[in-house]
Amino acid sequence: MSNEKVPGGSAEKSKPIGVFDSGIGGLTVVNALRTLLPNESIFYLGDTARVPYGGKSASTVQRYSLEIAALLLEEDAKTVVVACNTASAVALSQLTASVPVTVTGVILPGAQAAIAATRTGHVGVIGTRATINSGAYERVLRSLDSEIRVTARACPLLVPLIEEGWLERPITDQIIMQYVGPLVDEGIDTLVLGCTHYPLLRNAMARLLGDTITLVDSAENCANAVHELLIRENLRAPETNAGSLQVALTDPPDSFLRIAREALQLDVGEVQLRDVTAHAPL
Amino acid sequence: MSNEKVPGGSAEKSKPIGVFDSGIGGLTVVNALRTLLPNESIFYLGDTARVPYGGKSASTVQRYSLEIAALLLEEDAKTVVVACNTASAVALSQLTASVPVTVTGVILPGAQAAIAATRTGHVGVIGTRATINSGAYERVLRSLDSEIRVTARACPLLVPLIEEGWLERPITDQIIMQYVGPLVDEGIDTLVLGCTHYPLLRNAMARLLGDTITLVDSAENCANAVHELLIRENLRAPETNAGSLQVALTDPPDSFLRIAREALQLDVGEVQLRDVTAHAPL
Repeated sequence: MSNEKVPGGSAEKSKPIGVFDSGIGGLTVVNALRTLLPNESIFYLGDTARVPYGGKSASTVQRYSLEIAALLLEEDAKTVVVACNTASAVALSQLTASVPVTVTGVILPGAQAAIAATRTGHVGVIGTRATINSGAYERVLRSLDSEIRVTARACPLLVPLIEEGWLERPITDQIIMQYVGPLVDEGIDTLVLGCTHYPLLRNAMARLLGDTITLVDSAENCANAVHELLIRENLRAPETNAGSLQVALTDPPDSFLRIAREALQLDVGEVQLRDVTAHAPL
Repeated sequence: MSNEKVPGGSAEKSKPIGVFDSGIGGLTVVNALRTLLPNESIFYLGDTARVPYGGKSASTVQRYSLEIAALLLEEDAKTVVVACNTASAVALSQLTASVPVTVTGVILPGAQAAIAATRTGHVGVIGTRATINSGAYERVLRSLDSEIRVTARACPLLVPLIEEGWLERPITDQIIMQYVGPLVDEGIDTLVLGCTHYPLLRNAMARLLGDTITLVDSAENCANAVHELLIRENLRAPETNAGSLQVALTDPPDSFLRIAREALQLDVGEVQLRDVTAHAPL
Protein backbone atom coordinates (compact mmCIF):
# COMPACT_ATOMS: atom_id res chain seq x y z
CA MET A 1 0.00 0.00 0.00
CA SER A 2 1.33 3.41 -0.91
CA ASN A 3 1.79 6.25 1.53
CA GLU A 4 0.39 8.77 -0.90
CA LYS A 5 -2.58 10.84 0.15
CA VAL A 6 -5.77 9.65 -1.51
CA PRO A 7 -8.34 12.38 -0.86
CA GLY A 8 -11.65 10.75 -0.15
CA GLY A 9 -10.09 7.34 0.41
CA SER A 10 -11.14 5.49 3.55
CA ALA A 11 -7.79 6.07 5.32
CA GLU A 12 -8.25 9.77 4.64
CA LYS A 13 -11.78 9.72 6.07
CA SER A 14 -10.80 8.36 9.46
CA LYS A 15 -8.12 11.03 9.96
CA PRO A 16 -8.92 13.74 12.50
CA ILE A 17 -10.28 17.21 11.91
CA GLY A 18 -7.48 19.52 13.12
CA VAL A 19 -8.80 22.49 15.10
CA PHE A 20 -6.80 25.29 16.69
CA ASP A 21 -7.26 28.42 18.74
CA SER A 22 -5.02 30.78 20.68
CA GLY A 23 -6.41 29.19 23.83
CA ILE A 24 -9.44 27.32 25.05
CA GLY A 25 -12.16 29.54 23.55
CA GLY A 26 -12.09 27.41 20.39
CA LEU A 27 -13.62 24.58 22.41
CA THR A 28 -16.95 26.28 21.64
CA VAL A 29 -16.28 25.31 18.00
CA VAL A 30 -15.27 21.80 19.08
CA ASN A 31 -18.50 21.57 21.05
CA ALA A 32 -20.52 22.55 17.97
CA LEU A 33 -18.55 20.06 15.84
CA ARG A 34 -19.05 17.22 18.35
CA THR A 35 -22.81 17.88 18.41
CA LEU A 36 -23.11 18.08 14.63
CA LEU A 37 -20.56 15.39 13.69
CA PRO A 38 -20.43 12.92 16.59
CA ASN A 39 -18.55 10.24 14.65
CA GLU A 40 -15.63 12.49 13.61
CA SER A 41 -12.27 12.44 15.41
CA ILE A 42 -11.02 15.87 16.44
CA PHE A 43 -7.50 16.97 17.36
CA TYR A 44 -7.56 20.34 19.12
CA LEU A 45 -4.51 22.53 19.76
CA GLY A 46 -4.90 25.50 22.11
CA ASP A 47 -1.84 27.77 22.10
CA THR A 48 -2.22 28.65 25.78
CA ALA A 49 1.52 29.44 26.15
CA ARG A 50 1.01 32.48 23.91
CA VAL A 51 -2.67 33.27 24.50
CA PRO A 52 -4.28 35.73 23.80
CA TYR A 53 -3.73 36.56 20.12
CA GLY A 54 -6.34 39.36 20.20
CA GLY A 55 -3.96 42.19 21.11
CA LYS A 56 -1.03 41.04 18.96
CA SER A 57 0.14 42.14 15.53
CA ALA A 58 -0.92 40.43 12.32
CA SER A 59 2.62 39.24 11.53
CA THR A 60 3.02 37.58 14.92
CA VAL A 61 -0.39 35.86 14.70
CA GLN A 62 0.48 34.66 11.17
CA ARG A 63 3.75 33.12 12.38
CA TYR A 64 2.03 31.40 15.32
CA SER A 65 -0.75 30.06 13.06
CA LEU A 66 1.68 28.54 10.55
CA GLU A 67 3.62 26.84 13.37
CA ILE A 68 0.42 25.29 14.69
CA ALA A 69 -0.77 24.21 11.23
CA ALA A 70 2.53 22.30 10.85
CA LEU A 71 1.76 20.42 14.07
CA LEU A 72 -1.81 19.63 12.99
CA LEU A 73 -0.53 18.21 9.68
CA GLU A 74 1.90 16.02 11.62
CA GLU A 75 -1.17 14.78 13.46
CA ASP A 76 -2.53 13.82 10.02
CA ALA A 77 -5.39 16.32 9.99
CA LYS A 78 -7.67 15.82 6.96
CA THR A 79 -8.79 19.43 7.21
CA VAL A 80 -7.80 22.42 9.38
CA VAL A 81 -10.30 24.56 11.26
CA VAL A 82 -9.17 27.95 12.55
CA ALA A 83 -11.40 28.17 15.63
CA CYS A 84 -10.10 31.63 16.43
CA ASN A 85 -11.48 34.83 14.99
CA THR A 86 -8.19 36.68 15.34
CA ALA A 87 -6.22 34.06 13.39
CA SER A 88 -9.07 33.75 10.87
CA ALA A 89 -9.03 37.52 10.41
CA VAL A 90 -5.31 37.96 9.83
CA ALA A 91 -3.80 34.57 8.89
CA LEU A 92 -6.38 32.69 6.79
CA SER A 93 -4.92 33.57 3.41
CA GLN A 94 -1.38 32.59 4.50
CA LEU A 95 -2.73 29.32 5.90
CA THR A 96 -4.74 28.57 2.76
CA ALA A 97 -1.66 29.20 0.63
CA SER A 98 0.63 27.02 2.77
CA VAL A 99 -1.50 24.12 3.99
CA PRO A 100 -2.17 21.20 1.60
CA VAL A 101 -5.65 20.49 3.06
CA THR A 102 -8.67 22.80 3.06
CA VAL A 103 -8.67 25.44 5.79
CA THR A 104 -11.92 26.75 7.30
CA GLY A 105 -12.04 29.93 9.35
CA VAL A 106 -14.86 31.31 11.47
CA ILE A 107 -15.38 34.61 9.68
CA LEU A 108 -17.00 33.67 6.36
CA PRO A 109 -19.54 31.30 8.01
CA GLY A 110 -20.41 33.95 10.60
CA ALA A 111 -20.77 36.64 7.95
CA GLN A 112 -23.03 34.42 5.83
CA ALA A 113 -25.26 33.72 8.83
CA ALA A 114 -25.42 37.43 9.66
CA ILE A 115 -26.48 38.32 6.10
CA ALA A 116 -29.19 35.65 6.28
CA ALA A 117 -30.41 36.95 9.68
CA THR A 118 -30.52 40.72 9.26
CA ARG A 119 -33.79 42.37 8.26
CA THR A 120 -32.66 46.00 8.56
CA GLY A 121 -29.33 45.43 6.78
CA HIS A 122 -27.38 46.80 9.75
CA VAL A 123 -25.07 44.24 11.38
CA GLY A 124 -22.95 44.69 14.51
CA VAL A 125 -19.69 42.81 15.03
CA ILE A 126 -17.81 42.44 18.31
CA GLY A 127 -14.40 40.82 18.73
CA THR A 128 -10.85 41.28 19.95
CA ARG A 129 -8.77 44.32 19.01
CA ALA A 130 -6.86 42.37 16.34
CA THR A 131 -10.03 40.98 14.75
CA ILE A 132 -11.81 44.33 14.66
CA ASN A 133 -8.72 46.30 13.55
CA SER A 134 -8.23 43.87 10.66
CA GLY A 135 -11.59 44.91 9.18
CA ALA A 136 -12.06 41.28 8.11
CA TYR A 137 -15.76 41.03 8.99
CA GLU A 138 -16.62 44.28 7.19
CA ARG A 139 -14.72 43.10 4.11
CA VAL A 140 -16.40 39.70 4.00
CA LEU A 141 -19.87 41.07 4.84
CA ARG A 142 -19.59 43.68 2.07
CA SER A 143 -18.33 41.09 -0.43
CA LEU A 144 -21.53 39.11 0.29
CA ASP A 145 -23.83 42.16 0.19
CA SER A 146 -22.44 45.50 -0.95
CA GLU A 147 -25.41 47.33 0.64
CA ILE A 148 -24.83 45.99 4.15
CA ARG A 149 -24.11 48.44 6.96
CA VAL A 150 -21.59 47.23 9.54
CA THR A 151 -20.75 48.68 12.95
CA ALA A 152 -17.82 46.93 14.60
CA ARG A 153 -16.41 47.28 18.10
CA ALA A 154 -13.42 45.76 19.88
CA CYS A 155 -14.33 44.40 23.34
CA PRO A 156 -10.98 43.49 24.94
CA LEU A 157 -12.46 42.95 28.42
CA LEU A 158 -14.87 40.18 27.45
CA VAL A 159 -12.29 37.39 27.10
CA PRO A 160 -10.72 37.99 30.54
CA LEU A 161 -14.22 38.28 32.06
CA ILE A 162 -15.13 34.91 30.57
CA GLU A 163 -11.82 33.36 31.68
CA GLU A 164 -12.53 34.66 35.20
CA GLY A 165 -15.76 32.66 35.04
CA TRP A 166 -17.92 35.74 35.64
CA LEU A 167 -20.51 34.62 33.11
CA GLU A 168 -23.57 35.83 35.01
CA ARG A 169 -22.78 38.85 37.16
CA PRO A 170 -24.05 42.44 37.34
CA ILE A 171 -20.54 43.71 36.42
CA THR A 172 -20.50 41.49 33.35
CA ASP A 173 -23.89 42.82 32.30
CA GLN A 174 -22.63 46.39 32.67
CA ILE A 175 -19.49 45.73 30.64
CA ILE A 176 -21.51 44.01 27.90
CA MET A 177 -23.87 46.98 27.73
CA GLN A 178 -20.97 49.47 27.77
CA TYR A 179 -19.63 47.75 24.64
CA VAL A 180 -22.83 46.69 22.88
CA GLY A 181 -25.25 49.45 23.97
CA PRO A 182 -23.90 52.00 21.45
CA LEU A 183 -24.27 49.45 18.61
CA VAL A 184 -27.91 48.86 19.58
CA ASP A 185 -28.49 52.62 19.74
CA GLU A 186 -27.09 52.89 16.21
CA GLY A 187 -29.77 50.47 15.01
CA ILE A 188 -28.14 47.04 14.49
CA ASP A 189 -30.60 44.13 14.47
CA THR A 190 -27.99 41.36 14.26
CA LEU A 191 -24.85 40.94 16.35
CA VAL A 192 -21.98 38.69 15.29
CA LEU A 193 -20.15 37.19 18.28
CA GLY A 194 -16.81 37.51 16.52
CA CYS A 195 -14.67 35.68 19.08
CA THR A 196 -14.88 32.01 19.95
CA HIS A 197 -15.00 32.83 23.67
CA TYR A 198 -18.17 34.87 23.34
CA PRO A 199 -20.71 32.03 23.03
CA LEU A 200 -20.08 31.53 26.76
CA LEU A 201 -21.73 34.96 27.27
CA ARG A 202 -24.59 34.13 24.90
CA ASN A 203 -27.13 33.65 27.69
CA ALA A 204 -26.22 36.95 29.33
CA MET A 205 -26.35 38.78 25.99
CA ALA A 206 -29.66 37.23 24.99
CA ARG A 207 -31.14 38.26 28.36
CA LEU A 208 -29.78 41.83 28.03
CA LEU A 209 -30.58 42.39 24.35
CA GLY A 210 -33.93 40.59 24.19
CA ASP A 211 -35.61 39.45 20.99
CA THR A 212 -34.82 42.56 18.97
CA ILE A 213 -31.22 41.53 18.30
CA THR A 214 -30.32 38.23 16.61
CA LEU A 215 -27.07 36.79 17.97
CA VAL A 216 -24.83 35.07 15.39
CA ASP A 217 -22.60 32.49 17.00
CA SER A 218 -19.44 32.05 14.94
CA ALA A 219 -18.75 28.66 16.55
CA GLU A 220 -22.05 27.13 15.42
CA ASN A 221 -21.79 28.52 11.89
CA CYS A 222 -18.20 27.37 11.55
CA ALA A 223 -19.26 23.81 12.47
CA ASN A 224 -21.94 23.96 9.76
CA ALA A 225 -19.33 25.06 7.22
CA VAL A 226 -17.02 22.17 8.19
CA HIS A 227 -19.93 19.75 7.83
CA GLU A 228 -20.61 20.96 4.28
CA LEU A 229 -16.91 20.84 3.43
CA LEU A 230 -16.54 17.21 4.56
CA ILE A 231 -19.48 16.21 2.38
CA ARG A 232 -18.18 18.21 -0.60
CA GLU A 233 -14.68 16.74 -0.35
CA ASN A 234 -15.95 13.23 0.45
CA LEU A 235 -14.06 13.23 3.76
CA ARG A 236 -16.80 12.30 6.23
CA ALA A 237 -15.85 9.60 8.69
CA PRO A 238 -17.80 6.35 8.24
CA GLU A 239 -20.98 6.31 10.33
CA THR A 240 -19.60 3.30 12.19
CA ASN A 241 -16.71 5.46 13.46
CA ALA A 242 -16.71 6.24 17.16
CA GLY A 243 -15.88 9.93 17.28
CA SER A 244 -13.18 11.14 19.64
CA LEU A 245 -11.60 14.32 20.96
CA GLN A 246 -7.92 14.85 21.74
CA VAL A 247 -7.07 18.19 23.37
CA ALA A 248 -3.48 19.45 23.37
CA LEU A 249 -2.30 22.72 24.91
CA THR A 250 1.05 24.53 24.76
CA ASP A 251 0.86 25.48 28.44
CA PRO A 252 -0.63 23.37 31.26
CA PRO A 253 -4.37 23.93 31.70
CA ASP A 254 -5.63 26.43 34.28
CA SER A 255 -9.00 27.09 35.84
CA PHE A 256 -10.51 28.29 32.57
CA LEU A 257 -10.43 24.75 31.20
CA ARG A 258 -12.74 23.77 34.08
CA ILE A 259 -15.04 26.73 33.32
CA ALA A 260 -15.17 25.81 29.62
CA ARG A 261 -15.75 22.13 30.46
CA GLU A 262 -18.64 22.98 32.77
CA ALA A 263 -20.23 25.67 30.61
CA LEU A 264 -20.01 23.49 27.49
CA GLN A 265 -20.46 20.13 29.23
CA LEU A 266 -17.68 18.89 26.99
CA ASP A 267 -15.64 15.81 27.85
CA VAL A 268 -12.08 16.82 26.93
CA GLY A 269 -10.45 13.69 28.39
CA GLU A 270 -6.74 13.77 29.16
CA VAL A 271 -4.98 16.91 27.97
CA GLN A 272 -1.60 16.61 26.18
CA LEU A 273 1.11 19.23 26.60
CA ARG A 274 2.82 20.12 23.28
CA ASP A 275 5.50 22.55 22.12
CA VAL A 276 4.61 24.16 18.79
CA THR A 277 7.76 26.26 18.56
CA ALA A 278 9.67 23.04 17.86
CA HIS A 279 7.82 22.94 14.54
CA ALA A 280 9.26 24.97 11.71
CA PRO A 281 6.41 27.06 10.33
CA LEU A 282 5.14 25.90 6.93
CA MET B 1 42.40 47.32 26.59
CA SER B 2 41.00 43.96 27.54
CA ASN B 3 37.45 42.87 26.93
CA GLU B 4 37.12 41.37 30.37
CA LYS B 5 34.37 42.64 32.63
CA VAL B 6 35.70 44.88 35.36
CA PRO B 7 32.83 45.29 37.82
CA GLY B 8 32.79 48.84 39.06
CA GLY B 9 35.09 50.05 36.26
CA SER B 10 34.00 53.16 34.40
CA ALA B 11 33.05 51.23 31.23
CA GLU B 12 30.87 49.05 33.43
CA LYS B 13 29.19 52.08 35.00
CA SER B 14 27.99 53.59 31.74
CA LYS B 15 26.36 50.34 30.66
CA PRO B 16 22.56 50.26 30.75
CA ILE B 17 20.30 48.87 33.42
CA GLY B 18 18.42 46.04 31.68
CA VAL B 19 14.74 45.95 32.59
CA PHE B 20 12.10 43.51 31.37
CA ASP B 21 8.43 42.76 31.70
CA SER B 22 5.90 40.57 29.92
CA GLY B 23 4.54 43.74 28.34
CA ILE B 24 4.37 47.44 28.95
CA GLY B 25 3.32 47.41 32.63
CA GLY B 26 6.99 47.37 33.64
CA LEU B 27 7.25 50.94 32.35
CA THR B 28 5.93 51.91 35.80
CA VAL B 29 9.26 50.58 37.15
CA VAL B 30 11.15 52.42 34.41
CA ASN B 31 9.29 55.59 35.36
CA ALA B 32 10.31 55.17 39.00
CA LEU B 33 13.94 54.45 37.93
CA ARG B 34 14.06 57.51 35.65
CA THR B 35 12.80 59.73 38.46
CA LEU B 36 15.20 58.32 41.03
CA LEU B 37 18.24 57.79 38.76
CA PRO B 38 17.98 60.34 35.96
CA ASN B 39 21.55 59.88 34.73
CA GLU B 40 21.29 56.10 34.24
CA SER B 41 20.76 54.52 30.81
CA ILE B 42 17.93 51.99 30.69
CA PHE B 43 17.26 49.27 28.13
CA TYR B 44 13.69 47.98 28.46
CA LEU B 45 12.36 44.82 26.83
CA GLY B 46 8.60 44.24 26.85
CA ASP B 47 7.65 40.75 25.65
CA THR B 48 4.42 41.94 24.04
CA ALA B 49 4.39 39.04 21.55
CA ARG B 50 3.73 36.65 24.45
CA VAL B 51 2.03 38.96 26.96
CA PRO B 52 0.48 38.33 29.48
CA TYR B 53 2.54 35.98 31.65
CA GLY B 54 0.02 36.14 34.51
CA GLY B 55 -2.08 33.18 33.44
CA LYS B 56 0.80 30.97 32.24
CA SER B 57 2.65 28.12 33.94
CA ALA B 58 5.83 28.60 35.94
CA SER B 59 7.93 26.55 33.49
CA THR B 60 6.81 28.63 30.51
CA VAL B 61 7.45 31.93 32.32
CA GLN B 62 10.91 30.65 33.36
CA ARG B 63 11.80 29.80 29.76
CA TYR B 64 10.62 33.18 28.51
CA SER B 65 12.55 35.01 31.26
CA LEU B 66 15.82 33.24 30.47
CA GLU B 67 15.44 34.05 26.76
CA ILE B 68 14.95 37.73 27.56
CA ALA B 69 17.85 37.82 30.04
CA ALA B 70 20.11 36.54 27.22
CA LEU B 71 19.03 39.48 25.06
CA LEU B 72 19.60 41.99 27.88
CA LEU B 73 23.13 40.65 28.41
CA GLU B 74 23.79 41.05 24.70
CA GLU B 75 22.76 44.67 25.22
CA ASP B 76 25.53 44.81 27.84
CA ALA B 77 23.24 45.27 30.85
CA LYS B 78 25.20 45.92 34.05
CA THR B 79 22.31 44.63 36.13
CA VAL B 80 18.95 43.03 35.32
CA VAL B 81 15.65 44.21 36.76
CA VAL B 82 12.64 41.91 36.55
CA ALA B 83 9.91 44.55 36.33
CA CYS B 84 7.22 41.89 36.33
CA ASN B 85 5.73 40.35 39.42
CA THR B 86 4.86 37.10 37.67
CA ALA B 87 8.43 36.53 36.44
CA SER B 88 9.81 37.69 39.81
CA ALA B 89 7.51 35.20 41.56
CA VAL B 90 8.36 32.13 39.50
CA ALA B 91 11.69 32.75 37.68
CA LEU B 92 13.90 34.84 39.98
CA SER B 93 15.94 31.94 41.37
CA GLN B 94 16.58 30.52 37.86
CA LEU B 95 17.60 33.98 36.65
CA THR B 96 19.88 34.57 39.63
CA ALA B 97 21.55 31.21 39.03
CA SER B 98 22.03 31.80 35.27
CA VAL B 99 22.77 35.50 34.86
CA PRO B 100 26.32 36.77 35.60
CA VAL B 101 25.07 40.18 36.85
CA THR B 102 22.87 40.89 39.87
CA VAL B 103 19.15 40.38 39.28
CA THR B 104 16.55 42.44 41.16
CA GLY B 105 12.90 41.43 41.26
CA VAL B 106 9.91 43.39 42.48
CA ILE B 107 8.73 41.06 45.23
CA LEU B 108 11.36 41.41 47.98
CA PRO B 109 11.35 45.26 47.81
CA GLY B 110 7.54 45.32 47.89
CA ALA B 111 7.44 42.88 50.81
CA GLN B 112 9.98 44.93 52.77
CA ALA B 113 7.95 48.10 52.23
CA ALA B 114 4.76 46.31 53.31
CA ILE B 115 6.39 45.09 56.56
CA ALA B 116 7.56 48.65 57.25
CA ALA B 117 4.08 50.06 56.56
CA THR B 118 1.71 47.72 58.40
CA ARG B 119 0.61 48.58 61.92
CA THR B 120 -1.90 45.75 62.40
CA GLY B 121 0.41 43.08 60.95
CA HIS B 122 -2.19 42.08 58.35
CA VAL B 123 -1.07 42.67 54.76
CA GLY B 124 -3.11 42.18 51.59
CA VAL B 125 -1.50 41.25 48.26
CA ILE B 126 -3.13 41.48 44.84
CA GLY B 127 -1.60 40.27 41.59
CA THR B 128 -2.05 38.01 38.57
CA ARG B 129 -3.08 34.37 38.90
CA ALA B 130 0.50 33.15 38.41
CA THR B 131 1.92 35.55 41.02
CA ILE B 132 -0.70 34.73 43.64
CA ASN B 133 -0.67 30.96 42.95
CA SER B 134 3.11 30.93 43.37
CA GLY B 135 2.72 32.04 47.00
CA ALA B 136 5.90 34.12 46.53
CA TYR B 137 4.69 37.18 48.47
CA GLU B 138 3.51 35.10 51.45
CA ARG B 139 6.84 33.28 51.51
CA VAL B 140 8.94 36.45 51.39
CA LEU B 141 6.70 38.36 53.83
CA ARG B 142 6.85 35.48 56.34
CA SER B 143 10.63 35.18 55.95
CA LEU B 144 10.86 38.87 56.95
CA ASP B 145 8.34 38.59 59.81
CA SER B 146 7.10 35.18 60.87
CA GLU B 147 4.12 36.77 62.70
CA ILE B 148 2.76 38.58 59.65
CA ARG B 149 -0.74 37.72 58.44
CA VAL B 150 -1.17 37.73 54.65
CA THR B 151 -4.35 37.64 52.58
CA ALA B 152 -3.68 37.32 48.86
CA ARG B 153 -6.04 37.52 45.91
CA ALA B 154 -5.62 37.07 42.17
CA CYS B 155 -7.25 39.90 40.17
CA PRO B 156 -7.04 38.76 36.53
CA LEU B 157 -9.37 41.49 35.24
CA LEU B 158 -7.28 44.45 36.39
CA VAL B 159 -4.58 44.19 33.70
CA PRO B 160 -7.05 44.12 30.78
CA LEU B 161 -9.01 46.98 32.42
CA ILE B 162 -5.83 49.04 32.59
CA GLU B 163 -4.86 48.12 29.03
CA GLU B 164 -8.34 49.22 27.90
CA GLY B 165 -7.50 52.61 29.43
CA TRP B 166 -10.49 52.47 31.80
CA LEU B 167 -8.49 53.95 34.68
CA GLU B 168 -11.28 56.10 36.12
CA ARG B 169 -14.70 54.60 35.49
CA PRO B 170 -17.56 53.37 37.69
CA ILE B 171 -17.09 49.81 36.33
CA THR B 172 -13.41 49.91 37.26
CA ASP B 173 -14.31 51.04 40.77
CA GLN B 174 -16.78 48.17 41.09
CA ILE B 175 -14.27 45.58 39.89
CA ILE B 176 -11.59 46.91 42.25
CA MET B 177 -14.02 46.69 45.17
CA GLN B 178 -15.17 43.20 44.12
CA TYR B 179 -11.56 42.07 44.39
CA VAL B 180 -10.26 44.22 47.25
CA GLY B 181 -13.42 44.66 49.37
CA PRO B 182 -13.18 41.21 50.97
CA LEU B 183 -9.52 41.86 51.93
CA VAL B 184 -10.52 45.12 53.63
CA ASP B 185 -13.35 43.31 55.44
CA GLU B 186 -10.81 40.78 56.70
CA GLY B 187 -8.86 43.60 58.31
CA ILE B 188 -5.79 44.34 56.13
CA ASP B 189 -4.27 47.80 56.67
CA THR B 190 -1.65 47.58 53.89
CA LEU B 191 -2.17 46.47 50.29
CA VAL B 192 0.72 45.41 48.05
CA LEU B 193 0.04 46.24 44.39
CA GLY B 194 1.71 43.02 43.26
CA CYS B 195 1.64 43.66 39.52
CA THR B 196 3.56 46.37 37.69
CA HIS B 197 0.40 47.43 35.85
CA TYR B 198 -1.45 48.27 39.05
CA PRO B 199 0.23 51.62 39.86
CA LEU B 200 -1.88 52.96 36.97
CA LEU B 201 -4.95 52.27 39.17
CA ARG B 202 -3.31 53.79 42.23
CA ASN B 203 -5.43 56.96 42.13
CA ALA B 204 -8.67 55.00 41.83
CA MET B 205 -7.64 52.66 44.66
CA ALA B 206 -6.55 55.49 46.96
CA ARG B 207 -9.90 57.22 46.35
CA LEU B 208 -11.87 54.01 47.03
CA LEU B 209 -9.89 52.76 50.02
CA GLY B 210 -9.21 56.08 51.73
CA ASP B 211 -6.56 56.67 54.37
CA THR B 212 -7.13 53.45 56.29
CA ILE B 213 -5.23 51.31 53.77
CA THR B 214 -1.59 52.00 52.85
CA LEU B 215 -0.86 51.15 49.21
CA VAL B 216 2.56 49.61 48.53
CA ASP B 217 3.69 50.25 44.98
CA SER B 218 6.05 47.49 43.85
CA ALA B 219 7.44 49.71 41.07
CA GLU B 220 8.61 52.45 43.42
CA ASN B 221 10.14 50.03 45.92
CA CYS B 222 11.91 48.10 43.18
CA ALA B 223 13.52 51.34 41.95
CA ASN B 224 14.75 52.03 45.50
CA ALA B 225 16.27 48.55 45.66
CA VAL B 226 18.07 49.08 42.32
CA HIS B 227 19.41 52.41 43.59
CA GLU B 228 20.89 50.73 46.69
CA LEU B 229 22.30 47.90 44.58
CA LEU B 230 24.11 50.27 42.20
CA ILE B 231 25.72 52.04 45.15
CA ARG B 232 26.64 48.74 46.84
CA GLU B 233 28.21 47.31 43.67
CA ASN B 234 29.81 50.61 42.68
CA LEU B 235 27.91 50.63 39.39
CA ARG B 236 26.29 54.08 39.42
CA ALA B 237 26.64 56.02 36.18
CA PRO B 238 28.82 59.15 36.52
CA GLU B 239 26.75 62.20 37.43
CA THR B 240 27.81 63.80 34.16
CA ASN B 241 26.03 61.02 32.27
CA ALA B 242 22.94 62.04 30.36
CA GLY B 243 20.48 59.28 31.19
CA SER B 244 18.55 57.61 28.37
CA LEU B 245 15.77 55.15 27.75
CA GLN B 246 15.60 52.59 24.94
CA VAL B 247 12.34 50.64 24.71
CA ALA B 248 12.20 47.39 22.72
CA LEU B 249 9.10 45.22 22.26
CA THR B 250 8.64 41.76 20.76
CA ASP B 251 5.40 42.79 19.04
CA PRO B 252 4.61 46.21 17.54
CA PRO B 253 3.15 48.64 20.10
CA ASP B 254 -0.61 49.03 20.40
CA SER B 255 -2.85 51.58 22.06
CA PHE B 256 -1.71 50.61 25.56
CA LEU B 257 1.69 52.15 24.91
CA ARG B 258 -0.10 55.47 24.40
CA ILE B 259 -2.09 54.97 27.62
CA ALA B 260 1.09 54.17 29.58
CA ARG B 261 2.93 57.10 28.00
CA GLU B 262 0.14 59.50 28.95
CA ALA B 263 -0.53 58.12 32.42
CA LEU B 264 3.17 58.04 33.28
CA GLN B 265 4.21 61.07 31.21
CA LEU B 266 7.18 58.99 30.14
CA ASP B 267 9.12 59.78 26.98
CA VAL B 268 9.80 56.34 25.47
CA GLY B 269 11.29 57.69 22.22
CA GLU B 270 11.44 55.38 19.22
CA VAL B 271 10.46 51.78 19.97
CA GLN B 272 12.60 48.92 18.59
CA LEU B 273 11.05 45.63 17.50
CA ARG B 274 13.08 42.59 18.66
CA ASP B 275 12.74 38.80 18.47
CA VAL B 276 13.74 37.13 21.72
CA THR B 277 13.08 33.59 20.53
CA ALA B 278 16.20 33.92 18.36
CA HIS B 279 18.18 33.96 21.63
CA ALA B 280 19.00 30.59 23.13
CA PRO B 281 17.95 30.76 26.77
CA LEU B 282 20.83 30.99 29.23
